Amino acid sequence: MQERFETTIGLIRPVNRHMAPIGQAHIDNLTKPRGSLGRLEDLALQLYLIQEAPPEADPMRIYTVAGDHGVCDENVSLFPQEVTRQMVLNFLTGGAGINVMAATAGVQLRVVDAGVRGGTFAEHPQLIQAKVAPGTANLAEGPAMSLEQCMQALLLGLSLADKAAREGVKVLGTGDMGIGNTTPSTALYCAYLGLDPVEVAGPGTGLNKQEVASKAEVVARGLASNHDALESGDPINMLAALGGFEIATLAGLILGGARNHQLVCVDGFISTAAYTAAWKICPSVRDYCVISHVSAEPGHKKALNKLGLAPLFDLGFRLGEGTGAACAMYLVRSATDMYNRMATYAGAGVSEGR
Amino acid sequence: MQERFETTIGLIRPVNRHMAPIGQAHIDNLTKPRGSLGRLEDLALQLYLIQEAPPEADPMRIYTVAGDHGVCDENVSLFPQEVTRQMVLNFLTGGAGINVMAATAGVQLRVVDAGVRGGTFAEHPQLIQAKVAPGTANLAEGPAMSLEQCMQALLLGLSLADKAAREGVKVLGTGDMGIGNTTPSTALYCAYLGLDPVEVAGPGTGLNKQEVASKAEVVARGLASNHDALESGDPINMLAALGGFEIATLAGLILGGARNHQLVCVDGFISTAAYTAAWKICPSVRDYCVISHVSAEPGHKKALNKLGLAPLFDLGFRLGEGTGAACAMYLVRSATDMYNRMATYAGAGVSEGR
Repeated sequence: MQERFETTIGLIRPVNRHMAPIGQAHIDNLTKPRGSLGRLEDLALQLYLIQEAPPEADPMRIYTVAGDHGVCDENVSLFPQEVTRQMVLNFLTGGAGINVMAATAGVQLRVVDAGVRGGTFAEHPQLIQAKVAPGTANLAEGPAMSLEQCMQALLLGLSLADKAAREGVKVLGTGDMGIGNTTPSTALYCAYLGLDPVEVAGPGTGLNKQEVASKAEVVARGLASNHDALESGDPINMLAALGGFEIATLAGLILGGARNHQLVCVDGFISTAAYTAAWKICPSVRDYCVISHVSAEPGHKKALNKLGLAPLFDLGFRLGEGTGAACAMYLVRSATDMYNRMATYAGAGVSEGR
Repeated sequence: MQERFETTIGLIRPVNRHMAPIGQAHIDNLTKPRGSLGRLEDLALQLYLIQEAPPEADPMRIYTVAGDHGVCDENVSLFPQEVTRQMVLNFLTGGAGINVMAATAGVQLRVVDAGVRGGTFAEHPQLIQAKVAPGTANLAEGPAMSLEQCMQALLLGLSLADKAAREGVKVLGTGDMGIGNTTPSTALYCAYLGLDPVEVAGPGTGLNKQEVASKAEVVARGLASNHDALESGDPINMLAALGGFEIATLAGLILGGARNHQLVCVDGFISTAAYTAAWKICPSVRDYCVISHVSAEPGHKKALNKLGLAPLFDLGFRLGEGTGAACAMYLVRSATDMYNRMATYAGAGVSEGR
């Protein structure tokens, strides 16, 4: 298991920046002042470097990965834990935010049970049933996952990226569902980026000030309880100690996307925690990822600043599920259409500027 | 002419905010934490108040309105003036940024000659040939337009909104094309909002620092030359003095959209100048408009701050043509799909939060 994982990671390479001037020259020849489509031009160039060809966006696919969290015992969420399971069913009947936003964006959606409490779900064409275990242990008391469980979730993520690649998917989006999962994400930001629980902990789905303070204490307790794993400095040990099944699966998806030369649109607060784990495991994933948006969850901006990453947009989203990724994927399609369908100055007989 | 205009303006009403709790209650019942789709929820509610019914987005249409500017004599643009005409032809053959981005967003595009230099264009199904005059006069030396010309352009804009309404269009987008048109827009911001030419003048399509300073001087000269019109305090006099045919047409489009209960997605720097004129003429247009994005043209942010308006996104665009509006219209569709297609908590059997 470990070996297969390490082989994959070894295949991830930074993009070849020597090709950038070729893609940039094409973009600069299109009938618009240079740079005037801003981040869309950056996206087109990034995808050109990933694909080493005129960039293609479609088909695109979001994996919304669900898991439950033992840390819910600490009363860190306004919603009861069974909502994770209820929302998976809502995804499968098409009623959730991500169903609507993926459809509007023209993006495929797959739902993954990586660790939802309770038994397996009934079969469904959009569902990948791959439960590692029915929920993690309470990270405040010790490791959330065993190393074996964490590795199983990482490999699940790799296999999702591979399945998508076999089915022609060019662009991946990350989505999460897991009541309580801002808490493990907060803990991971603290462990990986040296942030303080008090500065990262936020209201999640709507905690009040006192509840946020209590959440920060839970995270601090988790960091102390998992001291040895964190001291090891090994990013997978840290992910096992503080993460969740959906977070580890998304980290694997990001690594697999990078290995497969797929662009990965990273959603919000939870997905960026998964990105951070993937980046600690293999820094070259950075070239293959774009951060869709900055979440209304206040710790997200702090984490992005630490990571030196600029999100595409800020619409005040804090839903997760991949809803931010869906909007970003629409922008990716706009970028590739710009690259492939706009006329050049010479072709359109338009005079260039001084 | 004046009378028809005033009758229209008299029909613009603020939206009925007493209906807001009904729309908001529906949004809050959808299976997501309250407020977790941020600006998308605001858009859905705004459209609900405009339409007084479950909001519909499609069909949507962008009018990209073109005009030339006498102030190009002052050397305020890197591009030769004939590019306005060349770009209209590029719009009609489908090769410009707005063609691609409107198509990607699933939005109709119409191109309007409101005042391009040279003769009329050959007929084309997407073209509305309505030239007021072949370019404005030089605003640095006196009024850019006569009052009659300005009124003709305003009425053209009203008629475009009406034509769209008759054809079922629910949401309008504004687009502009006019070499040199950041200069009249800058002048309008100064006149309407009391800003200083030095703080608003920017590089447009790529002026250097010295050229930007010279552009600010041209604007200052225009404000002085048109002192009497500006002293009158009459927003239409001011628009005639400092505006352009495309800008006045877009102001009319915004007014017409408000009268017809259409949401108007206002594009960038030039379109917001048109919005400012429309808002000075009739403050209630505010309820019917959304600012799509903040332009990379630095004066845009200053003008939006003065207007107290929050743009939807910042992707570093500075192309105009309606390209920012196209992305905003995609978000409007996402918002209406959220409103109409998501399940409710009760309907999906999902437990609500504390």
